[in-house]
Amino acid sequence: MAVRSVGVVSPQRMVFDEPLRLKSGGVLPRYELVYETYGELNAAKTNAVLVCHALSGSHHVAGYYEDDPKNIGWWDNFVGPGKPLDTRKFFVIGVNNLGGCYGSTGPKSIDPETGEPYGSRFPFVTVEDWVEAQARLADRLGISEFAAVIGGSLGGMQALSWALQYPERVRHVLAIATTPKLTAQNIAFNEVARQAILSDPDFHGGDYYRYGVVPKRGLMLARMIGHITYLSDDAMAEKFGRALKHGAFRYSYDVEFEIESYLRYQGEKFSRYFDANTYLLTTRALDYYDPAAEYGGDLAQAFARAQARFFVLSFSTDWRFSPARSREIVSALVHSEKPVSYLEIESKAGHDSFLLEHPHYHAAVRAYLNQVAV
Amino acid sequence: MAVRSVGVVSPQRMVFDEPLRLKSGGVLPRYELVYETYGELNAAKTNAVLVCHALSGSHHVAGYYEDDPKNIGWWDNFVGPGKPLDTRKFFVIGVNNLGGCYGSTGPKSIDPETGEPYGSRFPFVTVEDWVEAQARLADRLGISEFAAVIGGSLGGMQALSWALQYPERVRHVLAIATTPKLTAQNIAFNEVARQAILSDPDFHGGDYYRYGVVPKRGLMLARMIGHITYLSDDAMAEKFGRALKHGAFRYSYDVEFEIESYLRYQGEKFSRYFDANTYLLTTRALDYYDPAAEYGGDLAQAFARAQARFFVLSFSTDWRFSPARSREIVSALVHSEKPVSYLEIESKAGHDSFLLEHPHYHAAVRAYLNQVAV
Repeated sequence: MAVRSVGVVSPQRMVFDEPLRLKSGGVLPRYELVYETYGELNAAKTNAVLVCHALSGSHHVAGYYEDDPKNIGWWDNFVGPGKPLDTRKFFVIGVNNLGGCYGSTGPKSIDPETGEPYGSRFPFVTVEDWVEAQARLADRLGISEFAAVIGGSLGGMQALSWALQYPERVRHVLAIATTPKLTAQNIAFNEVARQAILSDPDFHGGDYYRYGVVPKRGLMLARMIGHITYLSDDAMAEKFGRALKHGAFRYSYDVEFEIESYLRYQGEKFSRYFDANTYLLTTRALDYYDPAAEYGGDLAQAFARAQARFFVLSFSTDWRFSPARSREIVSALVHSEKPVSYLEIESKAGHDSFLLEHPHYHAAVRAYLNQVAV
Repeated sequence: MAVRSVGVVSPQRMVFDEPLRLKSGGVLPRYELVYETYGELNAAKTNAVLVCHALSGSHHVAGYYEDDPKNIGWWDNFVGPGKPLDTRKFFVIGVNNLGGCYGSTGPKSIDPETGEPYGSRFPFVTVEDWVEAQARLADRLGISEFAAVIGGSLGGMQALSWALQYPERVRHVLAIATTPKLTAQNIAFNEVARQAILSDPDFHGGDYYRYGVVPKRGLMLARMIGHITYLSDDAMAEKFGRALKHGAFRYSYDVEFEIESYLRYQGEKFSRYFDANTYLLTTRALDYYDPAAEYGGDLAQAFARAQARFFVLSFSTDWRFSPARSREIVSALVHSEKPVSYLEIESKAGHDSFLLEHPHYHAAVRAYLNQVAV
């Protein structure tokens, strides 16, 4: 951690009093965004890079907190001095998305109108709304143009959307392990996770805060389902296989197999810190995202207005957003005559690969970002 | 239905007073099996075929009931006069497995010791126990040897197990869309489904019968997860894609996409008729099955004692039990110098293919069974 870490970091907060009109028709009259920055903004303000987070990520991308040194940013292996996204060259920004549960205004924030948590009254937010909010933050930081916007998975959708919503404000897009839209199967997994939460008696229609409970069972199940889709079949086989917890079957519904122990642990841990309403909102944002929809499904046409250069990366064993989905993006960009590089990384780790320190993957990003002028 | 159906059928019941010692160490002192038969047992009793059912199947394999003509057997397209498993040639038996919820002794049956449903006291049952119980039923029907034992998915595991537990009692095994053991990913899906049921407040530790409730939410979630794994990504894309229920987004957690409507409908329907304890027991039987385990993982060695001829079938888009899993079976049989035929069927429908009327699949089974001597 020490040598190549950005070191001690502090979250910052920005208050926005201009109402934000959302794609859903809702309005947030006032909101706050919590964010972190790493590196230094140069005098010309041309070296800023925005890192967009995925489902369970946050603004805490890299480094650690002085009072909580074990709380290391979720992409610390990727962002820092000498790392693929090098903070000696770039000024990196991480933002907790609207609707999140790490400090930006979200369902568990106090609604000034009622003095209670928003809960079920928090409006639906979309990828496009997040980009809009991020753009306003950039305005306030005096950043008129990003050298790059980078994200994996749902973060990749935001990076793509930046090129469409603010073509003149982003020079490079790195879209990693992502997709131009969810498939029926992707939506199906989200739906089961949502139903697990919505049907938990402790959900109370989204207003569980006032009962002093959380829909823990539902959140656990949602996270367990998620984890199955983040790992490849092969990675699970290699890591757990049919290994037994107790050496022999006990004929019980308690843990028999190590994979069960892993899933329960991940689910339980997640249910202690993640907000169920944020989970619901975020999976819906995933479902809704489809930039080609307003062009009759023609993604190439959707990309026509983009001005960025694109680097699209996928991982061979990712079955959540498979390489084929990345190739759809590449194909649309090619047909729209946009500059695009594409790399499919051989990796055993499935969708999770984008978060891991994989030499070839990191080398490729490093090489790409090395040639980005600032 | 009319022309090639076995027509009106009636379930039968057999009571067994000899205790059944189970692999788990438990004992069922007395139990009943409900079964159906189609066709006629020949004088030499050499034309009997056992059809083994999968997770949600039953003894009602073909035909319909006089008082419930819409209740058609789950494999009616496969079993009947002139169908792949031709009841003009074969005497076909379907049995509801022990622990089931369609009439054979199971968790919702009355435990004679307490006068209450077994519930949480019902012992764990395994694939091997089912085969043992089926063998006893065969004894009582005077069937010393099956012309064939046939099953898909979990039913295929039983068919394989027949060849190992009673090598001299089965001449042909048709193992369809199955696997020699579950992977970590397979177990993971089962585990999430189980946790959905176990964590449902209406589960009451398995003794929900006495409270007059069922863990409906858990069963719904379990079935929804199941359905995702039964269908291929492609089949889901083709059948549902991103089609919307209401033509436009409503920004809601109600049904937005058709796939959500389908999953909820399937889950809700299932939760009305299937017993949660049976679901739990059956998924555990799936997890536990591993005939190679007692041979240090050497499946070829496990097959050494088999005397049957094998026909192994898989479906190209089945990602629950992929063709690679069938090839493991084939490879072990080949290395054990057993007679085996293998066919991978091109099908879009995923794991569900084994239940569907697919011309090439049905023709292949028909051709194979044509050459089975009776």
